[in-house]
Amino acid sequence: MVQQIHLASRPQGWPTPANFSLVEVELPKLGADEVQVKNLFMSVDPYMRGRMNDVKGYVPPFQVGQALDGAAVGEVVASSSPNVKVGDVVTSQLGWRDQFVTDAGNVKVVDKNVTPTAYLGVLGVNGLTAWAGLRLVDVKAGDRVFISAAAGATGIIAGQLAKLRGCHVVGSAGSAAKVKMLTEELGFDAAFNYKDGELVKQLKQAAPEGIDVYFDNVGGDHLEAAIAAMRLFGRIIACGAISGYNDATPQPGPRNLSHMIGKRLTMKGFIVIDSFPHMNDFLAEIGPLFAQGQIKAKETVVEGLAQAPHAFLDLLRGGNTGKMIVKLA
Amino acid sequence: MVQQIHLASRPQGWPTPANFSLVEVELPKLGADEVQVKNLFMSVDPYMRGRMNDVKGYVPPFQVGQALDGAAVGEVVASSSPNVKVGDVVTSQLGWRDQFVTDAGNVKVVDKNVTPTAYLGVLGVNGLTAWAGLRLVDVKAGDRVFISAAAGATGIIAGQLAKLRGCHVVGSAGSAAKVKMLTEELGFDAAFNYKDGELVKQLKQAAPEGIDVYFDNVGGDHLEAAIAAMRLFGRIIACGAISGYNDATPQPGPRNLSHMIGKRLTMKGFIVIDSFPHMNDFLAEIGPLFAQGQIKAKETVVEGLAQAPHAFLDLLRGGNTGKMIVKLA
Repeated sequence: MVQQIHLASRPQGWPTPANFSLVEVELPKLGADEVQVKNLFMSVDPYMRGRMNDVKGYVPPFQVGQALDGAAVGEVVASSSPNVKVGDVVTSQLGWRDQFVTDAGNVKVVDKNVTPTAYLGVLGVNGLTAWAGLRLVDVKAGDRVFISAAAGATGIIAGQLAKLRGCHVVGSAGSAAKVKMLTEELGFDAAFNYKDGELVKQLKQAAPEGIDVYFDNVGGDHLEAAIAAMRLFGRIIACGAISGYNDATPQPGPRNLSHMIGKRLTMKGFIVIDSFPHMNDFLAEIGPLFAQGQIKAKETVVEGLAQAPHAFLDLLRGGNTGKMIVKLA
Repeated sequence: MVQQIHLASRPQGWPTPANFSLVEVELPKLGADEVQVKNLFMSVDPYMRGRMNDVKGYVPPFQVGQALDGAAVGEVVASSSPNVKVGDVVTSQLGWRDQFVTDAGNVKVVDKNVTPTAYLGVLGVNGLTAWAGLRLVDVKAGDRVFISAAAGATGIIAGQLAKLRGCHVVGSAGSAAKVKMLTEELGFDAAFNYKDGELVKQLKQAAPEGIDVYFDNVGGDHLEAAIAAMRLFGRIIACGAISGYNDATPQPGPRNLSHMIGKRLTMKGFIVIDSFPHMNDFLAEIGPLFAQGQIKAKETVVEGLAQAPHAFLDLLRGGNTGKMIVKLA
């Protein structure tokens, strides 16, 4: 028997532990060209909240009574495929379970010499999101870049990468410890705790000359403050809107959206799946930077599959510093 | 003595006739390289509302107790310039007055054989706005284009031009007569009166397959409805937001702005002054199309300088069909 986390019911507003259930299932026998994988680590991500609603999105909704899924990295314990060997470390989209059997084509063999959790964050979807997001609006040396949720899994990579591109980088985060990490460990030029006071004022203090680029992971008040701080011809990367993911009814947008006109701003919405074809270009740049320590990973690790729902809930409340990961074995 | 309209006081919310005053002034003597012009027609434009507030914008605010200004076309009645002859028809930014004296460099001689009002609309700033706006988001054959304030001075040109580009064009306007003009005279594929019912429903009916491009002259509810109707990778030309120009306190933005992400939308703010360097390219395309009747001008003409404030107020209420013009002589 193996364990999986199922969606017990759809959350209304903020999810609770009751929306999840830990279920034991029989592992199917290995068929032709299949692999059996023992998951080592799995990822929890804000976008999963959207999939818990019964709404057609860019990925299909989770189904009540069925296992959740998401990025995971594991070790192959059995294989009938010529391309995957027992002992290989593989990534998959089959998180939220301790073991699984699947077609060999559903896993990707990765480098055993790299910390496996890197494939869930800096060398995975978060790194690609940061890299492709900056590329989306042609971030260049000299740009003044503001990043919200800067201490989150995507924010930390976006900030470090923008620094390497020669930008002036400002971040917002939700605790003094996170702010300290951004400026003292990750090279941000300035950072502030958005809970410490009025956003518009804090951003003005951190970026007195305004900003050219806003990497938006948050939406809501953060987007309004960023629009207020934007310089002429500024660009907004609309990457996430975590401030609204648990709203039962949608909140109104920024009151200053008409500044898009006067300031000639560009806002581009963006989903990382469109960048999957560029994964190799991304890894060719970020792989060496990570190996050399020029881009650092930061992780918050929670232990045990049974704790995965709590890790997810804590992520939605900003409890993570860097990538939120669940250790499964 | 000549007459001018001055800003008597700054409007709070909706302007009223009391915010304007008709003033008689002495015309200065003609100096070296100057011209004296008798205005034939002047333009009233929504952007002028913003200039009545004491707020730094992309053009400086009007000053209380001083003459308003804006686009005008007139006839030269005296000239000390070798480049401008008496009898020439010229455009200037010196509207809101019946006559003026200025440096010859402040006027531009135009073709006497063209209806002079065309230089205020289709061959002027509105035409350039429509042309440059469509170019800003690379509007191409096959695009499904939605235009708000479609019967306004910019909307009528944007719609006709989008049709000539091979687009499917839908417009919203504020009366049955305007809707009829759009579909029966200007070649729009569909149009609706936004006062007739819920915007989202009406837009869905007019554009059942959704829209690829939204030319936004209105903001507010129109922007929210357009975001709801957008197809994947849709583009929004943020050109105007007349629905909010008279708000004493800014209204919240669209509740569905986070769809920018899921649908990967692009929104680009845009001010026509940035396109002035392309004026000749614009005229090279639009001049012949207008001369051949492939692009039609539509105008609402009000008579007399004293009526100019009323024309402006009526414009803000949508009283115009096509370009709102004041005939001065």
